[in-house]
Amino acid sequence: MLRVIAEANYVPNGVARSMSHGKTSILGLVLPDITNPFFPGIARGVEDAAGSFGYRVILCNTDNDRDTEASYLRTLREQRVDGIILVGTSHFDEAEIRALVGDIPLVWCDRVPASGASCAVLTDHYQGARLAVGHLLELGHRDIAMIAGPPVSAALERQRAFLDVLHEAGMGVPEHRMVQGDFRYDSGWRAMNRILEDETVTAVFCANDMMAFGAINAIFQRGLRVPEQISVIGYDNILFAEWSRPALTTVAQPIYLLGVQAVELLMDAMEGTISPPVRRLLEPTLVIRNSTARVNA
Amino acid sequence: MLRVIAEANYVPNGVARSMSHGKTSILGLVLPDITNPFFPGIARGVEDAAGSFGYRVILCNTDNDRDTEASYLRTLREQRVDGIILVGTSHFDEAEIRALVGDIPLVWCDRVPASGASCAVLTDHYQGARLAVGHLLELGHRDIAMIAGPPVSAALERQRAFLDVLHEAGMGVPEHRMVQGDFRYDSGWRAMNRILEDETVTAVFCANDMMAFGAINAIFQRGLRVPEQISVIGYDNILFAEWSRPALTTVAQPIYLLGVQAVELLMDAMEGTISPPVRRLLEPTLVIRNSTARVNA
Repeated sequence: MLRVIAEANYVPNGVARSMSHGKTSILGLVLPDITNPFFPGIARGVEDAAGSFGYRVILCNTDNDRDTEASYLRTLREQRVDGIILVGTSHFDEAEIRALVGDIPLVWCDRVPASGASCAVLTDHYQGARLAVGHLLELGHRDIAMIAGPPVSAALERQRAFLDVLHEAGMGVPEHRMVQGDFRYDSGWRAMNRILEDETVTAVFCANDMMAFGAINAIFQRGLRVPEQISVIGYDNILFAEWSRPALTTVAQPIYLLGVQAVELLMDAMEGTISPPVRRLLEPTLVIRNSTARVNA
Repeated sequence: MLRVIAEANYVPNGVARSMSHGKTSILGLVLPDITNPFFPGIARGVEDAAGSFGYRVILCNTDNDRDTEASYLRTLREQRVDGIILVGTSHFDEAEIRALVGDIPLVWCDRVPASGASCAVLTDHYQGARLAVGHLLELGHRDIAMIAGPPVSAALERQRAFLDVLHEAGMGVPEHRMVQGDFRYDSGWRAMNRILEDETVTAVFCANDMMAFGAINAIFQRGLRVPEQISVIGYDNILFAEWSRPALTTVAQPIYLLGVQAVELLMDAMEGTISPPVRRLLEPTLVIRNSTARVNA
């Protein structure tokens, strides 16, 4: 089952197909932090799609904390939710999750667990990062740095693509040009200040938009300009990417659709019409705006 | 009961004081749209505080649609939630809400219903807007326009303060200097383009930050500069206010605390230790950054 749903207002129809006995008609949505601008779009997709199937959604913010996540998963089991969607990073693999939630159907979103017979919906992070780095190469950049993310699959895939594309182009990456951040604005700002010590760098690929905003402000605070002197490209295409000045070139994830498809996959898992593992991979797209330009433009 | 809770990680203690029989230990959180950057902070405050009391939170996005709101309120009643927090605008007054949800305890957040014996937590929007306009007057601005919000109490209070402060300073407001928006970025952009037809305007008070971002981009697209030629001040202090360039001068609402205090008030209402109506008014604060400057600077 793969329904295509327009990324628009998706009004719950109120007709519950699972209001039958023994069901709570409630799903659990576990994510790191709803105040991180990447997650509200997913939460909307989840809630809208869940509503169309007659389900309500309990929101659980874990702050990427292991104990908080475990506590929430136990509580969702006590609440007898009918299914769980686990978004972003998780401290647990499939077996550990099962110990916490029993046989409650579960779908991973934006992440694949290291092992286990799981269902997952995510964007092709490797392909998306290839698009980003390829764009910088096409603009003539050769001295490219990366602000990488934390050690989670989504970030590691982007890092792997960065290294692969540059190696394929016959270029190595000096160690000091790969600086790790934690997906937050401040870490992007700090990482960029370290990268700026190498005055030959002309472009930076940031593993998410939040760090890209931090990097751009660090560059301007040094008296340099984006994109005239340094090109910056992000990843995610959150709301402010379009509105920031310069408007941010980035790789768009179909954020809302991730949430919608996670629910659809969960419904299939709850009905037993699919046999895990099932992986659904969504396509990223390059969005060229004003934060990247030809080298020496 | 007024507990002061630090705006920080507020880990649910897992000790439910209301896991007793007959309770679902679930609250309903009804808000316009979690992808609007103003609401995730409130949702975090609500979820964190609810967790500390042993409650989970069902998230309901209404898109400010009357039918969707009614549908959600009916469903929350069917789910037998123990309490409801209604954030932002609502299409219903207290009596209509009661017809939909029965006697489920309910707290309004960020808005006061037109009538009824209700409990509400909100920021003093009138006082906050006075701070904003007073700041522009102190900088020497006399030709000040306003991009107002939609006809909801939070926006109307800000508009009333704008007019009062200017009248107290002996100044009228020509009709064309008050342009209405809908709290969204695009409406701020459009409103600013209309305001720019009056070339004497030197400062603009925007009823929220999102519209201020739209206004700033409209100003730069005309080849003018913020704050050198036109000062712009927003309202809310959402995440990107600090990171945008120029960093946005704005009025900060204690967004997270609004959510926390809404839950505390709801707990009191559920225990019957308060007699509605109870109003809790939080203080706004002026945050001066780089989007405002002295006139003719």
